[in-house]
Amino acid sequence: MPETIPADSVGLVKPQILAFDTPLALDCGRSLSSYELAYETYGELNADASNAILICHALSGDHHAAGYHSEEDRKAGWWESCIGPGKPIDTNHFFVVSSNNLGGCKGSTGPMSLNPEKNKPYGPDFPIVTVKDWVRSQARLADALGIKQWAAVIGGSLGGMQAMQWAIDFPDRLRHSVVIAAAPKLSAQNIGFNEVARQAIMSDPEFHQGHYYEHNVIPRRGLMLARMLGHITYLSDESMRSKFGRDLREGKLNFGFDVEFQVESYLRYQGQTFVEQFDANTYLLMTKALDYFDPAADYGNDLARALEQAKAQFLVISFTSDWRFASKRSREIVKALLDSKKDVSYSEIVAHHGHDAFLIPIPDYLDIFSSYMDRLKVGD
Amino acid sequence: MPETIPADSVGLVKPQILAFDTPLALDCGRSLSSYELAYETYGELNADASNAILICHALSGDHHAAGYHSEEDRKAGWWESCIGPGKPIDTNHFFVVSSNNLGGCKGSTGPMSLNPEKNKPYGPDFPIVTVKDWVRSQARLADALGIKQWAAVIGGSLGGMQAMQWAIDFPDRLRHSVVIAAAPKLSAQNIGFNEVARQAIMSDPEFHQGHYYEHNVIPRRGLMLARMLGHITYLSDESMRSKFGRDLREGKLNFGFDVEFQVESYLRYQGQTFVEQFDANTYLLMTKALDYFDPAADYGNDLARALEQAKAQFLVISFTSDWRFASKRSREIVKALLDSKKDVSYSEIVAHHGHDAFLIPIPDYLDIFSSYMDRLKVGD
Repeated sequence: MPETIPADSVGLVKPQILAFDTPLALDCGRSLSSYELAYETYGELNADASNAILICHALSGDHHAAGYHSEEDRKAGWWESCIGPGKPIDTNHFFVVSSNNLGGCKGSTGPMSLNPEKNKPYGPDFPIVTVKDWVRSQARLADALGIKQWAAVIGGSLGGMQAMQWAIDFPDRLRHSVVIAAAPKLSAQNIGFNEVARQAIMSDPEFHQGHYYEHNVIPRRGLMLARMLGHITYLSDESMRSKFGRDLREGKLNFGFDVEFQVESYLRYQGQTFVEQFDANTYLLMTKALDYFDPAADYGNDLARALEQAKAQFLVISFTSDWRFASKRSREIVKALLDSKKDVSYSEIVAHHGHDAFLIPIPDYLDIFSSYMDRLKVGD
Repeated sequence: MPETIPADSVGLVKPQILAFDTPLALDCGRSLSSYELAYETYGELNADASNAILICHALSGDHHAAGYHSEEDRKAGWWESCIGPGKPIDTNHFFVVSSNNLGGCKGSTGPMSLNPEKNKPYGPDFPIVTVKDWVRSQARLADALGIKQWAAVIGGSLGGMQAMQWAIDFPDRLRHSVVIAAAPKLSAQNIGFNEVARQAIMSDPEFHQGHYYEHNVIPRRGLMLARMLGHITYLSDESMRSKFGRDLREGKLNFGFDVEFQVESYLRYQGQTFVEQFDANTYLLMTKALDYFDPAADYGNDLARALEQAKAQFLVISFTSDWRFASKRSREIVKALLDSKKDVSYSEIVAHHGHDAFLIPIPDYLDIFSSYMDRLKVGD
């Protein structure tokens, strides 16, 4: 944690765990007889529980969205830029709930958790989970917390897909859905990149068909490659150019295969640190949830018909340099919402940061996000 | 080979090998005391050797650019669409020379070749080669074939970079330089993708620091991943969408990690077949040559100054959906040529095929390419 907690941070936070013993039926046909969800909350729930906001995380995210876990903690939660006193998701007004998705590796039941039937970690036996499964599990968390209706469900990237699915599957349980840097479904190119990442992990000899925990190893090389590749898709060509250009680490070419360009050094570092922080089986599950997300599929491949179910108002935000989920993908969502006569605000933010822009405090982005969220305060 | 040889094919062709025993000094500071170049020729060299054209290949290409190697050969050379009687590179008029680059794995001296000093394959001891090294070696091939000046040096992608380097390094030895789907240098994103490919290969336990030949294995997983990733960057998002969309191989989701989407099946197949055809050490060398290519670097990072050396006329072609080397990269080349007062024709072809478009018989592309090449005939 910084010397002094910034005034606009929620400060020290403590993760919590809730255990559920009602079986959860999953899209894959299997079910979890019992499971736990790790979550954090920021701000105070008001008397009629009308000020609650659910934050949904993306591929490699978790429930630690804001604040610090300890005095020593140097890094704040992943969405510190948007959650806190006076920030777009204003904890002086809202009660914010952020949970780790099922299948995760940061506290919620997932591949690293004990499989009660086998008395060893689930590993590859953990069922494939979908965005719809996550939304169902988050609804149970809401029940447990006494929240009948969210003021808003909010997320970026894969998190935005959850916010969209919430509006379709539980129309009466949210008033607003905020969908940032998302897409109505993955493109063949998106799936292709995910498949390369999966093959990198699954072809690593230390993957052991997913049973690597039992061998006390991790598929380090594969997970590192997956992260390096993913990272390129999170940045824009421009942002990589301005960050690294063709800068050489030692100022000259060495005509070898060690790091020569700064961008190589950066990507290797990103991959190496990620391996220490994330579980490969969870990474595989998250990429599958992305591939499978396609709410229109249940409605004759008509997204407008799928969204007809929704009663929420929508804010959709995209970023000009995002090529992973380009603005035109967000406009597909906006068009479907307009076709189904929904109340939608859309903003395309000029930003050179690529897909990662949704995590970055870009003034125009924060302004638009804040002014939309202010409407919700009035609404309560 | 098809039942009957198409009338516009050069038909049966035979690769040739030329041995050179004058040492070749390389940019990396090392030199090759002797080496061989594999090449093919199509058409007839005229009396004054003024109708010769050099074809330069790209990352995974080779000297087999047109025609068939045998009656059984089902697949023609990689640029069959552009080389042959009546085609843009018209073998009724031109004498076409296509060589395999040094460091290659299809006949020219490379990592798989015997290292005379060690009496075993070079493997990782093969020196790093650059585009400039290739151009120097190709100049010696020209000498050996009695070609003082090429009518044109032509290439796509990495091949286009060689065509550009030829015009700078040997201004008097070519009259035209045709640079297709290329870039003046790689971007940080381009280098990033290459680095992920290299890490995939080098981190494969069967790579053995490049000495895998001696272990009678190949870094299959790594090379497959490198090819899968590369392939995504050769196609456009649109072309992948139109080719595969989100089509499921079995028409339904299986909630597992086997192939589900057609695009996964396609990429795995591309990766698997490539592993049988290409050498991992060569793949590493080719990606390095791409990373290092930067002709402006020798001229104060001023591409216009670099191109001032050139005496050739230029044709630059790019494709609208190419995001690996986007049109704006080609326009950087065109601007530098205009700034240095060179004769340049530029055409941006509307095509949805992505980077691979330069290999595809797109009518507008073939028409523009042909009409430019017709000028050369008149010129002779």
